[in-house]
Parts: sequence; C-alpha cells; structure tokens
Amino acid sequence: MKTIRSTIPRSNLAMRWLRLHLLATTVARETFLGTTCVVIDALRATTTIAQAVAAGAREVRVFEEVEPARRAALTLERAEYVLAGERGGKRIEGFDLGNSPAEFVPERVGGRTILFTTTNGTRALARCGLAGEVLVAAAVNLESAAAALAGATSVDLVCAGTDGEVSREDVLVAGGLVARLLADSGWEPTDEALLARDAWQAVVGTAVGALRQNLLARAMAESRGGRNLLALGLGEDIRWSAGVNSLAVVPKYDGATGVVTK
Amino acid sequence: MKTIRSTIPRSNLAMRWLRLHLLATTVARETFLGTTCVVIDALRATTTIAQAVAAGAREVRVFEEVEPARRAALTLERAEYVLAGERGGKRIEGFDLGNSPAEFVPERVGGRTILFTTTNGTRALARCGLAGEVLVAAAVNLESAAAALAGATSVDLVCAGTDGEVSREDVLVAGGLVARLLADSGWEPTDEALLARDAWQAVVGTAVGALRQNLLARAMAESRGGRNLLALGLGEDIRWSAGVNSLAVVPKYDGATGVVTK
Repeated sequence: MKTIRSTIPRSNLAMRWLRLHLLATTVARETFLGTTCVVIDALRATTTIAQAVAAGAREVRVFEEVEPARRAALTLERAEYVLAGERGGKRIEGFDLGNSPAEFVPERVGGRTILFTTTNGTRALARCGLAGEVLVAAAVNLESAAAALAGATSVDLVCAGTDGEVSREDVLVAGGLVARLLADSGWEPTDEALLARDAWQAVVGTAVGALRQNLLARAMAESRGGRNLLALGLGEDIRWSAGVNSLAVVPKYDGATGVVTK
Repeated sequence: MKTIRSTIPRSNLAMRWLRLHLLATTVARETFLGTTCVVIDALRATTTIAQAVAAGAREVRVFEEVEPARRAALTLERAEYVLAGERGGKRIEGFDLGNSPAEFVPERVGGRTILFTTTNGTRALARCGLAGEVLVAAAVNLESAAAALAGATSVDLVCAGTDGEVSREDVLVAGGLVARLLADSGWEPTDEALLARDAWQAVVGTAVGALRQNLLARAMAESRGGRNLLALGLGEDIRWSAGVNSLAVVPKYDGATGVVTK
C-alpha cells in the first residue's frame, strides 16, 4: 500500500495570520484592510462594552468626544438612552454612568442605547474602521472572542494602550487570546503575538478560576492604568476586569456607524 | 527612643526610571536626551560587537551603509582592520567576516579595528545619538550590562527589531535585563518593561546554565529573525547568542564618532 502524500508544500497550506499590535495608535489604518480586528482596552472600555451588551443593552454608540455624545442624547427619549463615559478615569459631569463595568446592570442598561465615550478604547475602535470585522474583547469574554475567530484567516489583535503608551493589561489579555488560539494548529503568529503570549503565561500560568482572576488582577494593578484606577478608588473595577470568561458575548463594532451590537 | 522618620514622601525619593522601547525606529531621538541607553540586537549585531570587544578588538566602527565601510578600509593598513557585516543575514561580498559572533576570535580581531555594518543594530545605535551614554548589550553580557547600570538613574532599553518589526529575541533579552535590575529596589519600570520581564520569565523561568541557554535558544529560533538564520544555515549563531553571561564586557558606543569601544 502506498502512502498518499499531499503534493501541496507545507508553506502553501492555508495559513491563518495572527498579528498583534501593542499600541493601536501607532498602526496605519490601512493595515487592517479587510482583516478581522479584535480591539482590547481591558481597563476598562472593552470590558464595560462587553458587560453592557451582556446586560441587554440594545446597542453601544461609541464617541471619541464628549459633546457629540451629549448631542446624540438630545435626539432620544430619556428612557431610551444611558449617557456613559469617563475622562481621566472619572465619570463625566452630568453623565448617568462612568466606565465601571459593574454599573452596567440589566436594570440600568437593558433595552437601552448606551451613548459611550472613553478615550483610548474609542480611538482604538475607530482606527479599525477599514477592517472586515471588528470584535470587542477583554478578559471577561476571552473564550467567546476566541470562538468567534473560528473562521477567520487574518486576525489583528489591537491593544488600545493608554494615552499613546503600551498598556500591560491590554497586552496580557491579547496574549491570553493568542495562547487560546495557538492551541489550534494552522496559525502563523508574529513575534509580538508570541511575546504577548509569553507575558500572559508568566502572569497566569496554568491557573484557572479564582486563582487566575487573582493573578491577572494583581498584574493589572501594577500597570500604569491599574495604578490610576487604584488612586481613584476604583480597585474593584480591576478585579471585575480580571474575571476571565465571566461573559459569553462578543460585541461587534460597525466602523461606518460607530455602533457596537451583540 | 524616638523612631526617626524621613520627612521626604516616598514618591519624592530618588526614583530610577526604567523604560523599554520595543522597536528603536519608532522612538523619537529626543526621547533619549541625556539618558543611559542600552541597545539590544540579540540576533546578532550586539552579540557580535560584544564578542569582538571581548576578543580584543581595538574598536568597532559602526556603519549604516556598506560603501562608507569599504571607504574607511581604504584609509587603514590591511593588517589594521577587519571588514565585517551582513545584508539579508549573509556576509557582504568581499568582506572578511559576516555577522556570526563565533567568527570574531582573538586571532582574527585582536588589536584590530572592526569596520562593521549591519542593518537593524546599527540603526538602533545611531538612533541613540543624543543619549548621555550608550551601552551595547545582548544575552551574552546581560549581567555585565546590568552591573554597568549601577549608577544610572534614567535608563532606556532599546530593542533594535528587524526591518521595522518588533523582534521577540530583542525583547526577551531586554526583559532579562529588566528582571535583573528589578531585583534591586528603587526602579520605576514602564508597562513595556514589565511585559518584557514577563516574557523573559515565561521563557527562561528560574533556569540557569545550559538549560537557560537551551530555553532561550529555542524561543529565539521561533522568532522571525531566528527562522531567517535557520533558513540560512546559521543555527549555531542562535545557540551562541543565547549563551547568557558568557562574556564579561560592556561595549560603549560614541554617537559622535560611531565607534564602539570597551
């Protein structure tokens, strides 16, 4: 019996490209043309968006600036919307909610439009406007985001960063996604993707459940963004944001409309 | 007896800043004004420079382009210089040596001027021209480089990268330096520095000696630069470059002259 060999050289087999961008704002928009982007702003915008969607928000409209969000509110009935967002980590004056994910409970956001403005996360989403699809990910929906990439062949993990600097927490979460994806064969990761995976493994190792949450929260608390939150008395947000796989949603962002939906 | 307390708040105590730049070419030159830079091009330029200096080379003159290196050779006696460098990983035609560190033995380079041109490492060194001091580091002289930073208060670890992309091997080595430095108190690391430290720990863990070299070589071999070297049949260079602390030198680069000396 003859062994049947594929005549396709290994390098020509369908590879799946897995790139990671440590800082969204340093990447040209054209980089994402037609790819599947996964935007991560782990402390806290993408965590909060995932929570809002999981809690039954109708949609999340994302604004880079405060005033357009306020103006959008004027076009809606009061019961239809929740005005939410932060500047400098703090709730914006006159807004209903800040950017603490735990505030986005079904009683507050269910069935409503969230008018949402944060700095880094919003800008990172906007930067992916040319992508074929833009998913919103954080530690809280890591597994769901990975599952949503099952059919993707060209993936860009996009870390939002903080005020133009790399954020450790975003890269760690992106690294968790890399670790999860590389469990399947066929991916071709960049060096940055491998580095992020390394960092995730150093922090979380093989821990699961509450231990994993504790380890990730501790690392997030050491980061610049984490220390900012601690200084603002928002340490509970870090714990919340480190809750790996607590939510089973993958919000999708539409670059044409700036709207995130389930 | 009264406890004597410092009246200086902790945040005003002399902090030592430890920044890490994943990709030299994305950093503005002014960033390094007056700081202590440590340039890392682990595969292979800074490894080779460290080896050349350890082997007794008089100096290493660094050139961004090939022709200036050739012209410099015309000004020296044949016995005085060694023309060395690579393009696309390969020895440049007519050059005495390529960029394989093991070739830079005392018999070849002792007492001589090395006229050296590589792409990424050379550009990374040139980018640090405004620094107060520029050290050349790699895995092979990690401990010596760390010791040389004993008096520094503002340190920039500068990863050369490869053709404008982040190189895993450079970041790993930089992370090893971060891990070593943070063993002393007083450093304030950036998120990027912590991420690199995380990655180093994931790869090397607590291993020492031959095991550490094996683990680091394996990770380097997975990187884009490492795979390029393997494809060129230069796998032995990876092993050599992963030899942590095999050399006790800290070459210094003079931005005004482009010359590296012990």
